[in-house]
Parts: sequence; C-alpha cells; structure tokens
Amino acid sequence: MTIVKHGPASNAASKQKEAGAVVLALDAMGGDFAPEEVVLGAAAAAGPSLAVLLVGRKTEIEKALAGAKGAGRDFVEIIDAPDIIGFDEEPVKAVRQKANSSLVAACRLVAEGRAAAAVSAGNTGAMLAAALLQLGRIRGLKRPGLCTVLPTPGKPTVFIDVGASSEARPLHLLEFANMASIFAADVLGIANPSVGLVSIGEESVKGNELVLEAHRLMASQPQLNFYGNIEGRDIIRNVVDVVVTDGFTGNVCLKLMESTSSLIIEEVKKAAAASLTAKIGGALLKRRLGDFRKSIDAKEIGGAYLLGVRGLVIVCHGNSDRRAIASALGYAARAAQQDLVGNLGERVASL
Amino acid sequence: MTIVKHGPASNAASKQKEAGAVVLALDAMGGDFAPEEVVLGAAAAAGPSLAVLLVGRKTEIEKALAGAKGAGRDFVEIIDAPDIIGFDEEPVKAVRQKANSSLVAACRLVAEGRAAAAVSAGNTGAMLAAALLQLGRIRGLKRPGLCTVLPTPGKPTVFIDVGASSEARPLHLLEFANMASIFAADVLGIANPSVGLVSIGEESVKGNELVLEAHRLMASQPQLNFYGNIEGRDIIRNVVDVVVTDGFTGNVCLKLMESTSSLIIEEVKKAAAASLTAKIGGALLKRRLGDFRKSIDAKEIGGAYLLGVRGLVIVCHGNSDRRAIASALGYAARAAQQDLVGNLGERVASL
Repeated sequence: MTIVKHGPASNAASKQKEAGAVVLALDAMGGDFAPEEVVLGAAAAAGPSLAVLLVGRKTEIEKALAGAKGAGRDFVEIIDAPDIIGFDEEPVKAVRQKANSSLVAACRLVAEGRAAAAVSAGNTGAMLAAALLQLGRIRGLKRPGLCTVLPTPGKPTVFIDVGASSEARPLHLLEFANMASIFAADVLGIANPSVGLVSIGEESVKGNELVLEAHRLMASQPQLNFYGNIEGRDIIRNVVDVVVTDGFTGNVCLKLMESTSSLIIEEVKKAAAASLTAKIGGALLKRRLGDFRKSIDAKEIGGAYLLGVRGLVIVCHGNSDRRAIASALGYAARAAQQDLVGNLGERVASL
Repeated sequence: MTIVKHGPASNAASKQKEAGAVVLALDAMGGDFAPEEVVLGAAAAAGPSLAVLLVGRKTEIEKALAGAKGAGRDFVEIIDAPDIIGFDEEPVKAVRQKANSSLVAACRLVAEGRAAAAVSAGNTGAMLAAALLQLGRIRGLKRPGLCTVLPTPGKPTVFIDVGASSEARPLHLLEFANMASIFAADVLGIANPSVGLVSIGEESVKGNELVLEAHRLMASQPQLNFYGNIEGRDIIRNVVDVVVTDGFTGNVCLKLMESTSSLIIEEVKKAAAASLTAKIGGALLKRRLGDFRKSIDAKEIGGAYLLGVRGLVIVCHGNSDRRAIASALGYAARAAQQDLVGNLGERVASL
C-alpha cells in the first residue's frame, strides 16, 4: 500500500485531519460504476472538513479524478492498492489472498487509525470479511449486524440485519436491537428510538422459536424502548424507529422492497404511456414523480453500516452512482463525528 | 348445523350438484365486511354451474341476501351455523369449542362430501386448525402449506408457504415445491412450472441451513423443474413460476409486498396532488392507475390455498369485498373441477 499524494499540498489528508477534518477511506474500485462514479462521488463530498482517501489502482483513479469538477478534488488523496476482489469471489478466501485489494486496504486504514471509516460499494461479503479480519469485533459482542436506513415517508426507519449473517440466535437479535438503537440516536438524531421485532403476528406468542425467545429477551431489557412484534406490513409504515430481524429475513425483505418499488413505478409509467390522455397526464406528473422517486431512493441515505466491528464500515449498493457515494460519505462523516463505534462499545460494556 | 332452504326450489344445491354443478361452502361470517360483502360476493359468483352454501347465522345471511341483485341468489343455500370465531381467538381452542362456528361447519361440509371446497375470509389460524381437524392431511404428507398467487405483471407467480406454519424443515420445503407445482399446472394452467427457492444469493452455497439442505433435496428430484435459489428481488420478477420459502419468511414477505405497493401508490397520488400542474396530470392519469391497481390487486386472484389437507380449503384476505369473494369462488370452482386435491394425493403417493 503506497500513498500517492494528490491535491494542492502533499499529505493533504493528514493536514486536514490535524485541522479537525474527518478522514474517510473509500474503496475506489468497488461497485458497478467504479472507479468513475465512485471517484466523482468522493470529489463531490470532499471539502475542508472532509478528506477522502481514494483506495485502489492509482492510474485508474487519477484518470477518473481528471473528470472531477469543483474544489473537492483538492481534498482527496490516492492510496495505491492494486488488487481487485470481484463480485463472484469467495469472500473469506479472497480477502486472505488479496491483502492489497482496495477494500481490504480501506479497512486497514481504519485499523491503523488513519481513516475514521471505510466505505465500499464492492463485494459485500468480502467487505464484511475484511472488516472482521482487520478490525475485529467490539469486545463482549457476539455478532455484528448489517444495518441500513429505509427512506420511509415521513421519517426514516433503521433496519437490521440485512445480511451480515444467514442464521441468528435470540441473543444476536438483542444485540442488533441495542446497536441499531444507538445508531438511530447518533446518526439520525432519533431520541429514545422504539424497536420492533419482525414476526408473523403482533402478539408475543406469535412467531418462530427464534423470535419467541428474542421477544422475551428484548422485553426484559430496561435500556431498550421495545415496542414488541411487528408484521411484514409494518416494516415500512413507521410503526417503530428500528426494525430488528435475522439476516436471512432482512436480506430477502430489503431486496423485495427494492424490486416492489421499482416494479410499481415502472408499471405507473407504463400505465401513463398506454393511452394518449394518460400520456399527457403522465408527462405533467413526471417531475413530481421524479421528486417522489428520489424521496424513496435508498441511494439518498447511503449504504449499510456493519455495526459491531471495532471501526466504522459502510457497504453501499453495488449500483451506487456519484450521488449515492457522496451521500454515503456524508453520513459516514456524521457517524464518525458522533463516535458511533465508541458509543456502541460503551453500550455493550454496560450490559 | 341445520340446512335452511333458500332459492327458488328447496334443496337447490343438491339438485345443481346432480346436474353437474360445483358446490362450494362459504363462511358467510368471516372477514372484515361479513356477512354483507361475503354474501353479495356469493350471489355474484353463483349460477347454474356453481352453487354456494352460505354457512353462518341464518337471519343475518338472509338479511344480507335481500340486498343481492341478479339471478345469483337463486343458486345459494343457507346452512345455519350460529357460533362465531373472532380474529383474536386462539385458533385450536376456538375450533374445538365452537363446532358450530361458520368456518368449522364449512370445513365439515367438505369432509362430508357435500361441498367441493371451503372458503373463508375469517381467522386464518382457525381456518387452518378447522381444516386439519375436519379433513386431516393427505396420506404420506408431513406438512400442509398455504399457497397464494401473486398478481405479478405478465403472468402470475405461485408463492408458498405464506404462513401455515412458523418453522419448516427441508423436507417440508420440498413438499411445498411439489404441491405448488401441481397447483400452478392445475389451477393456473402453467405447463411444467419452474420452481425457485428463496435465499440470500443465487449460488447453491448461499443461504441458511434450512435452505442449503432444501436446495440439495429439491435438486435431486427429477419430477421438479427446479430453477435453483432466487433472491428477494426475484420473487415478483417472473424469474420462476413457483416461489418456495418457509412460512415465517413467506408471511413477512407477503405482508411487506402488500404494504409497499399500497404505500407507493399512495405516494404517487400525493405527488399528483402536490402541485397544480401535477394535479392536472394526476387527474388524467387516474383511470389508467385504477386499471393498473386492479391488475396488481391480490383480491383479483382470490385467496390462499391450504395445500396438503384432504379437501380444498381457501383462505381469503380479511378485507375481502364482494369482488374478492366472487373471484375466490371462481378459482375454487376451477380447482375443484381439476381435482387439485386428488392430483396432490397422487403426486405425494408417487414419491
């Protein structure tokens, strides 16, 4: 890993850090539109209070940076890391073999204290493996969880676990609830967030064995604002601030929500195009629909947080564009300033 | 249970049955809008080739029937069953204590061979318990599954299990796959339906223990057209004809899909109302949106089938209106004519 200086002054990020700026490590090679869109997202987000370390293949990053407009490019630094982990590689094996891959290097920068967070739109499994390997778990915590923010109308909803692991035990769900509550408070500013447990009925006796036992555990914790069970329909209805489920259910639900939203919007467009009258209506409605689409677009919130590791790690959607990357960097900076990871550690230690 | 004659001739249903008509038992008291909407749905669906036994409180049913228009009311018969099982009652206990409840009586009519199917929009758990108690499982089958049809654009998708049970073992998922394949062929007319298993990645090594083992089992069955794993996003994308998952995941997904669709359509309407220009557009688009909404409305398909019991049992959404009930009765008649239950028994016996 070689540091390549970029920006007006050499060692720009270090100087910014000394001046109180947040420094984030971004996997410049991860995602469907990397490195171009990722690098341009960094350039859009970077500024005097936010320095971005662009981790990846130096020449490719430089080429992408050449297309950046504005002052942002003066606040990035390139960290050369030539290896690439593809979307189809077996995560743990790939992470062990490719220590100089961009996402492993990004996590290492966090482990070394040179960056406050690692952000990647690359292979999620590899990012989780790299985070665990480089950072380890918070002391006393059994299972990290991947937490995302659903852009539900009115106010956002925190959703955990969306796929850090495929099986869970009741204690893990309790840990997810605790961690996501702190996330909701620190990053989204929600005071005393309410927590719902996904089940197949609202009553405490409804659910599978995992949920029945997790319900009992969560109900016994005075520090949690536990609402009780919620059903599938309630996930997006702002019934609670934090929605807790196992990584299998959460992953399936998240992907289902995305495709249901897309499908409906596509069908609305088709309906609008199907007749002349409707076509005129559709054209007039188009701008408003664009605004609406933006409001429900997960890209606006920016990525999923791997809670429970000793460092801030954010995984963005593979199809992230510059806007999504810039947004993710903004939220990551906020989480770093709030010392989210430190607060998680304190909560776990106090239990 | 007392038979109360209704219609132009006494014993109308029996006579119709002799003439080759399908006779269905409908729980007239089940659902948010019972008995009015349920009874009117029956009157809309009934005719010379379809007789409906309206099971429930005689006087209430008669009152509702008085509002029916058209000839349909001449093809229904009232079966007096005064007990009511509410939505909040513990299913097994309620079913045992209230043998003369409308839904238990409807299942009993099927067990006695007097009706080809029992249809209810009442308490799902109670209906499942009543079906198991009155009809029993198909010989050789371990676990019934609740199967529904998703009105995905282009062609429908069969989805099983949406909540007959909260836990599943790999063998149960295989049984669900076999049963839902026969359902897709018999009721929807899909030749050699392809079957997908819900997981958190397409590769056969992705998933929880249940899915990994179920995948191996399903891949080893020559009679199944097994596609492999599908992800949450693929459930509604017509990737496969039949989607298989455990009852916990299926129930959560079904309710999540419903609320996501409703939410998006509500937001589209709000977007249309938010400015004058968009308002004009929205008004013009309104009729097309109505058509579209109808096309994705689960009510159009009509109910979930409890596959694996020795009789045809259909559970409708609690909020079913007359249209939903009429649609469910139409599909139920088709399933009866195709001898769905007999075909399921043959498939199970052949394995």
